[in-house]
This record gives sequence, structure tokens and C-alpha cells, in this order.
Amino acid sequence: MEFHLALEPYLETYRYKQTALYAAFRDAIQGGRFPYGTQLPSSRELGRRYGLSRGVVYQVYERLMAEGFLEAVLGSGTYVRYRQSLEPGNRLHTADLPLSDWGRRLEALASERELRPRATPNSRRFADVHPSGPVPEPSGVGVQSNGTPLPERQLVNTQATSAASARLSPTRLPAVDQPSAEREIRFDFGHAAAQPFPAPEWRRLLYAEVRANTEAPAAAAPAQGYRPLREAIARHLRRARGLDVTADTVVVVSGSMQALALLAQLLLNAGDKAVLENPGYTGIRSAVFAAGGVPVPGRVDGQGLVVEPWDARLVFVTPSRQFPTGAVMSLPRRQALLQWAAENGAVVIEDDFDSEFRHRGRPIEPLKGLDRDGRVVFVGTFTRTMQAQLRIGYAVLPERLVEPFVRALQLYEPSPAAALEQRALAQFMAGGGYERHMRRMGRLYSRRFDRFGRLFERVLGRLFEIVPSDAGLHIFARWRSDEAGYLRFRAHCAGAGVVWVDAQENYIGVAEPAACFFFAHLNEAELEEGVERMERVASALGFGGLQAPEE
Amino acid sequence: MEFHLALEPYLETYRYKQTALYAAFRDAIQGGRFPYGTQLPSSRELGRRYGLSRGVVYQVYERLMAEGFLEAVLGSGTYVRYRQSLEPGNRLHTADLPLSDWGRRLEALASERELRPRATPNSRRFADVHPSGPVPEPSGVGVQSNGTPLPERQLVNTQATSAASARLSPTRLPAVDQPSAEREIRFDFGHAAAQPFPAPEWRRLLYAEVRANTEAPAAAAPAQGYRPLREAIARHLRRARGLDVTADTVVVVSGSMQALALLAQLLLNAGDKAVLENPGYTGIRSAVFAAGGVPVPGRVDGQGLVVEPWDARLVFVTPSRQFPTGAVMSLPRRQALLQWAAENGAVVIEDDFDSEFRHRGRPIEPLKGLDRDGRVVFVGTFTRTMQAQLRIGYAVLPERLVEPFVRALQLYEPSPAAALEQRALAQFMAGGGYERHMRRMGRLYSRRFDRFGRLFERVLGRLFEIVPSDAGLHIFARWRSDEAGYLRFRAHCAGAGVVWVDAQENYIGVAEPAACFFFAHLNEAELEEGVERMERVASALGFGGLQAPEE
Repeated sequence: MEFHLALEPYLETYRYKQTALYAAFRDAIQGGRFPYGTQLPSSRELGRRYGLSRGVVYQVYERLMAEGFLEAVLGSGTYVRYRQSLEPGNRLHTADLPLSDWGRRLEALASERELRPRATPNSRRFADVHPSGPVPEPSGVGVQSNGTPLPERQLVNTQATSAASARLSPTRLPAVDQPSAEREIRFDFGHAAAQPFPAPEWRRLLYAEVRANTEAPAAAAPAQGYRPLREAIARHLRRARGLDVTADTVVVVSGSMQALALLAQLLLNAGDKAVLENPGYTGIRSAVFAAGGVPVPGRVDGQGLVVEPWDARLVFVTPSRQFPTGAVMSLPRRQALLQWAAENGAVVIEDDFDSEFRHRGRPIEPLKGLDRDGRVVFVGTFTRTMQAQLRIGYAVLPERLVEPFVRALQLYEPSPAAALEQRALAQFMAGGGYERHMRRMGRLYSRRFDRFGRLFERVLGRLFEIVPSDAGLHIFARWRSDEAGYLRFRAHCAGAGVVWVDAQENYIGVAEPAACFFFAHLNEAELEEGVERMERVASALGFGGLQAPEE
Repeated sequence: MEFHLALEPYLETYRYKQTALYAAFRDAIQGGRFPYGTQLPSSRELGRRYGLSRGVVYQVYERLMAEGFLEAVLGSGTYVRYRQSLEPGNRLHTADLPLSDWGRRLEALASERELRPRATPNSRRFADVHPSGPVPEPSGVGVQSNGTPLPERQLVNTQATSAASARLSPTRLPAVDQPSAEREIRFDFGHAAAQPFPAPEWRRLLYAEVRANTEAPAAAAPAQGYRPLREAIARHLRRARGLDVTADTVVVVSGSMQALALLAQLLLNAGDKAVLENPGYTGIRSAVFAAGGVPVPGRVDGQGLVVEPWDARLVFVTPSRQFPTGAVMSLPRRQALLQWAAENGAVVIEDDFDSEFRHRGRPIEPLKGLDRDGRVVFVGTFTRTMQAQLRIGYAVLPERLVEPFVRALQLYEPSPAAALEQRALAQFMAGGGYERHMRRMGRLYSRRFDRFGRLFERVLGRLFEIVPSDAGLHIFARWRSDEAGYLRFRAHCAGAGVVWVDAQENYIGVAEPAACFFFAHLNEAELEEGVERMERVASALGFGGLQAPEE
């Protein structure tokens, strides 16, 4: 079979062979070099020719099939199934549309993660920050029901997930699994909308804004954000978090990812180093990588980020509640971090994602509260506390950075897209509705936290080590045994209709088997049902309540 | 007087001495090196010491005064009036917060334009893309009433404008000027909200979305945009513009600036060349500059952009109606442009901002319609045709660029911020309401176009040469005489309560005195009143219906 794939240039562009191979095939097919019907070599043959492992080739073929470029005909071979004539006006010479380094980084980032082998349907990945594509129905094998928008902290790419779960075929699961007809229990914050939400009040406020705005269009909110909202946020931070903040240094954004990405762009040149918690939030990794920054993994222990004499310009940290471990950064550590920042002229970006939910103990001041010389940026979001699709977050910036940050925002959006919601939220906060809502939600979540924590500890404590935490919306648990056991357990639980967020993707380099159980959106019955199913799977696999056999 | 300003490093960073001097002072003051009460040298003395023209120093002092950093005490001198203690938690060592090259480019871009001497209150500048700060009342001296959000095509920075108009003190204006109590006539699209808008229908649709979304939160729209809206846009483009488009290649954005900025980032590396029309849209210049691209000015004549053998990766063009001249790009030119793009592997970005408003002649196909090998990106917006604060635009991309573009969008916003509006707009378009609205608006605008065009020609044709155009929302007119005369006329008209958009800022390098008169939002009485006032000013200045005296 005459067959040649121009792989070389792609190997130079992409960091991963899989990514390169995928891109080379996609471009060759879209570019018409492999027309409809072309037969491709077997994964073994291709692997041999190009010096790639068969697994790598298989993964790439699999993705191209999932995307409809290829079809595998049983007993015959793999064929191109892409017709250019089906793409009106798009006979592409893709080689002629080279992306900038920035664009290629985004591409590499996404492809690489989509191609990464995944034992489980919905771990947290860069691609997870992208709800996209048609929404499949929930199924027993862990396809993400993307029926509701997902907050930054755990967002799932339905397509990728479907592909992943397809790999996790139910036929490979033994009889212990529940019939997938049974309602799925999702410890993944995917149903954030289930959280108690003051719908009538919120609706009234939005109605009022819609009415006012259609009767006499409101003034454009400045890119920095609707001032009354900035004032309300400043008031809230002063009262609830003890932060000495004025509206002038508050900038409203469309969710915290926008703030993190713009800050990385604004403060990092290609090659500049940025310290990231390890494990940490993958979205921050993406922001740094896209900006061309070089991630410096920062060790995390029970007191949060371990401060070291890094050579870096920027550090991203979650001091009030480390993501995902939940550790609270100790005061000495905080002081050491600020000391380091001052000595190195570095900026500290504090990502405060869910520490407002305290279940016990005294509230924890943000690191920003200790910031005396204006090097800490405090980033918060309403996605967690309000509706998930309310794309409103904020950054509290050192005065020096306010103007540059607003300018960065303005380059893309002269005035905010969520104008109505900004005004409604300002009203909601000014009227005290937001604080009432937070208190109500807090009480409910604390009950669920206690119930689930105790139950999980008692029933699954032999399999998982729960990392103690007094706050937040998820419980972080380390698998006590080896990864193989964890992956088996997770796969079979998914088969039994129990899914959770795999924490392995949050690690740079070697990842320990660990899980995030988001509990806040589930009621007590669901929490119990979930734990029971896990218990059944555990015993069916021979782990049951006892030490995992691998130990 | 012991005085030292560390100007050197700033001169290395900034392209303009004014920008460098401003930044050096601001940092020195905020950084505490010039504490409250410090007396600064006179502009003459400082100019001498640092080899700067006195005008440069004066402009910088003026801006620092406007920003409250300095105060000029009559007969005494200029003093620092900035108290750090007034800035809680912000005792800054700003030198310690260096920005990335990207950030510095944004900074330089804004500062440079804010500092550029301006004879007139509201020319169109990069800063104009930023409505920001408190909203002043309209006044006779041309302060922009920022009472309504402004579309990309002409946005005004209230603060900068107030500052500018302060410079244009009415006391300097002779008696010919009208009492500024009289209602201002603004040919600047600033009151876009005045355009006829189907408020009740739009309100009903938004109400429905709010209700649905609070009863059972809707699924997150993918970052690419709510699919029914993308389908409606594709349908509209097929029907109204003859474009062969599917929803798959349509991406919804928050106004066209977002698309332009992301495309520049996605396709340009620092140092890469991009062709911009000259004169052209300053927003595009900003996008290219921010991405580190090098603008290549493209000549414009009566047939639009003159295609030359540029060495560039990207070209931004407004073929259906060149901005600001209104010229329609001829077919040969279009073919030549696509030919050039194919030969150079370049991408063509077609910015279609208002050509949907045709007053006579046959509709003009987008350049994208000729695009056979997928190198044209078509960018459109609803800001012009709907409410200005509806931050919804779209890009139609070559298939190869869809994924990268969506990824770029997702990096900042996992799902759209204007979710409610996207759904409402999809309904509005699907129900035919949008086309009805466009027809109604089109008829009205055409009447105003004819009325104003004829009137302006007859009364002011001796002063301005109207560039013929059959479409759009503004008339482009070249001043027949010298710049000094134009600036005098413009300043006095502003004093008489008639303002328009100065087109000089749209030129790279040498600018000819020219103006954009946005007429569509004004009723016939206002249009007549505006022309009459200009006529009165003209005759009072001795230009009268006659040739301007300078000729």
C-alpha cells in the first residue's frame, strides 16, 4: 500500500508524539491528501514505520474515529471517512494557516490532554474547562450529563468524556455493577444547579433589569464592571472576609478563569517561571502554559504550599483551602510566601474558590489581608455560590495592576457581556439577599458535609484516607493502596453509577491515586446511596470494607 | 531644588517620550519617591534637564493633574498631591510589578493615545473602545454623554474625553457659539440607543429566558455559542448575504473586538506583519499591536484596499464598506486580495461592521463568499443592529481555525457570559423578528441618509467633500481645505453643540482632515438643526457657504 504521512514537521511542533500524529493525520485528511476511502495501515504497521508504540497509534486512530474522520471496518481495515465536499467552501490547505505560538500552545495543551489515556470517564482536565458539543443523556458508564453549566472548579467536556467512557466499555465490567437504569450518583459538582437557589428573588431582580433596560437602555457598565456591583463585592469582602478593599481595586470578570488567564498573559513572558501548587488546579496550569510561562511545581503538604527559594515571577496559590487537598495555609507559610514575593519582586495570585463555605472552626482570612505592599491579587467567583451559569467572578488587584488588567479586559470586551446579571447581582447583594442565601446554603452544606464525611470514613475509610478539612464543597481522599486497585475500583463504581472527580490530573508529574468527592449538591439519601454502592462494589471486588488486597 | 527622576529605563520601555515621562512620574509618586507636597520643576526647567520639549512636559503634568497626582498652585508651582496613606493596603513598589511585553504594549498603546494632543473632544481612539469611569452629563463643550453603551465602531472614553474637552475650554470660543444650554446634536453614534428598537418583543423573549432559567437552569451553552443562535446566524448569512455557511463554522463572541483581538493573538507572533487599511479601524490596530504584530499600512482608494505584494501573514479588510471612507472593494481587488493571500499563505479577516444597511444599489456579497480555500474569516456584530449593550458578535471561520478559535475563547470563558441574550436572540431571529426589525430600521435609516446627504452636500459641500457611499450609518467627508481650518471649525462647532467623529485618528502616519458624520440615530429635525448650526459657525468664522478662506 502506497502510504506516506508527513510527520516530521509535526514532531517538531508538538511536544507529544500522539499530538503530532493526530495533527498530521487530521491535516492530511482535511487537506485532501488522504481522500475519502483511503485505507490506512494497521496500528502495528504504522507504529513500526514511524517508530511509534502501537498504543500511541491506536489512541490516535481511536480519536480520529470518534471525530468521524476514520472508520474501522471489521476484518478489513481502517478507512478515511471524511468527504471534503461535505464541508462547503472549506477545501482547506491547512498548512497555509499556521497558528501563532500562543495558538499552538493552546492546541498542544488541548490535544495532549484529550489524547492522554484515561481509565476513568471524568477526571478534571484542561479540556474539562470546556463544556462543548451536543449534550448526551446520562448513562451508567459515566457519560457526563452536561445538563447544567459547570463551575470552573470542575467542568467536563462532554465529547471527550463520551469518548473516554466509550473506551470504558460496560462489557468489560463484571456482574457486580448495578443496572445502569438506576439513577447515577455524581460526586462531581456537575449538577451545581441542584444547590438551593433563591430562584423567585433572582428572577424578580432580573425581570426588573430587563424591563428597565428595554424601557430606557442603561448606561454601559465600564469594562471594570458595574460600579454598584464592585461596591457590593468590596463591602462583602470587608464584612465576610475582613479584607480592606475599595471598589476601585475590584474588577469584575466572566468567571475566575478569565482573571487567571489575563493575569498570566499580563505578567508572564514566554519562558518566565510561575510557581503552581502540585497538586493544583489544572486551569491555572493552562493559563500559565498558554501565556508561554514555565510552570514550577510547588510542593504541597498539610499546611498548604511549601515555600521555597523559587526563581519565579509569579505564584498561584489557594491559601484558604488548597485545591484539591483542602489544606489551609498556615500563618508562617503565608508570611514566608509574602516575604519571598517581596524579595523576588513577584506577584502572588490568590485563587479563593470555595473557602466561603466553612463547616467548622473560625473563618480564615485571605492571604490578601496580609498584603502590605500590593503584590497579592485576590480572585473570587460567584459561580460556586450562585448559579453555575452566572459567569461572574472578580479580582481584587494591587492599585498598580488595576489599569493594566482593565485594559486587558477592554481589549476583548469594551463593556461587560453579562450587563443584566451584573446589575441584578448588585441589587441582590445590596439588599442582603446574597448573605441570606449564603447562610442558608452554608447550613445545608455543613449538614451534608458532616453526614457524608462520617459515613464515608466509616464505610470506606479502609480504602481511602480522608484529608481533614473544615470547609469547602468536596472531600479529598487518598487511595490507601496502589493505582491499579484505584482504577479498578473507580471503573467499576462508574459502571455501578457512582462517579467522582479523579484528582490524578491535578498533579504535575507523578500522580498519587486520589479522588475529590463533591458532596454539596447531593441530598442525604443520595449521599448514602452513593456510599452504599461504593461499598457493594468494594466487596464484590474483594476490597470490601477491609484493607485493599493489594496491600 | 534637589530633584531626580529615573527616566532612562522608561525611555527604553516606551516608544514615546510622553508615555515614558508619564509612567516615570506616576511610578515615582505612587512608589513614594515623590511624597505628598513635593514641588516639581517647572515644565520649562524639566524639559531643559531631560531634553524634552516643554509641550511634552506640559501634557504629562496636565494628565497627572487630571488624575489627581499633581496640583498647580498659581504663582507658586506644581506639587505632588497624592497621599499613599489614602490608598489602603496599597503602599506600592510598582517597580516590583513589571508587566509582560503584552501588558506593556497595552499600556503604551493606551497612554500614548491618551497623551496625544487632541484638538477635539471625541475623536475615535484606542481609548475610545473603553467606556469607563463615572458618567458626566452632556455639556456644550462636547463631553461625551456616555449615557448609553457604544458600539465598537465608535466608543468614547468619558474620562479622557472630559479631560480633552477641559482643554477645549469654552472661554476660548468666540461669541458665535450657541449657549451650550441648547440640546447637543451628536453625529457620533453615541446615542445608538435612539435607534428604533422592538423593545416589547425583545423584553418578552428575555423574560421567557429568565423564567425558564430560574425554574430549571438551562444547559451551559458551549463556548462556541448557543447552537440555535449559531444556526440562526448561519441562516441569516445564507439568506441575507448569500454566504454558504453552516453553524459549525460560526462562533459567537462578545462583540467584534473580541474576535479581532483573539484572531490577532491566534495568528500573529511578535514581529509578524499584518496589513491594516489606512485609514482604518483603530480597534484593529490595537488588536495587532497588542499581539506584538507589526502593522503594515495598506493604501485605500475609491475601490477600497489597494492590493500590493505585501510581506505579511494577515490582512484586516472591510470590503463591503471600507471604514471609514465607505468605499466598496471592487471584484478585481477582491480576487487580487485572495490571490495574494493564497500565494502568501496569509489569512484574510473581513470585518463587516455596517454594510447590512444598504440605502441604494444591489447588496454586496461578503469577500468570504469568494473564499474557496478557507482563508477568510468573516466577523460581524449585532451591536449595530440591536441594542448597543447587547455584546454579541460572531466570526465565521475556516474549518481549520474553528477549533483553535474556540479554544482561545474557552481559555477565558468556558461558557458564554451573555447566555440569556444568546438564547433570546436565537428566538428573535428564528421567529423572523430580526429580519422585520432590520427592514424597518433600514427604511428609516435610508430616509435619513438621503435627507442628510442632500442637505449636507448643499449647505456644507464647499467645506467638505462627501465621499459617495450607498450604505452604512455614517457619511465620510474630507475637509476641502487645510487642517488648521478644520480644527477651528470643529472646535467651534463643538462649542455650538455640534460634534462628530474626527477621522484623523483612523490614519497611520499623515492624516488628512476628515470627519465621520453618524446620522442614523438622529431624526430629520435634529439632522437639519445640526447642519444649520454648522452653517452658522462656518459663516461666523468667515468660511460661510464659500470656499474656506485658506484656499
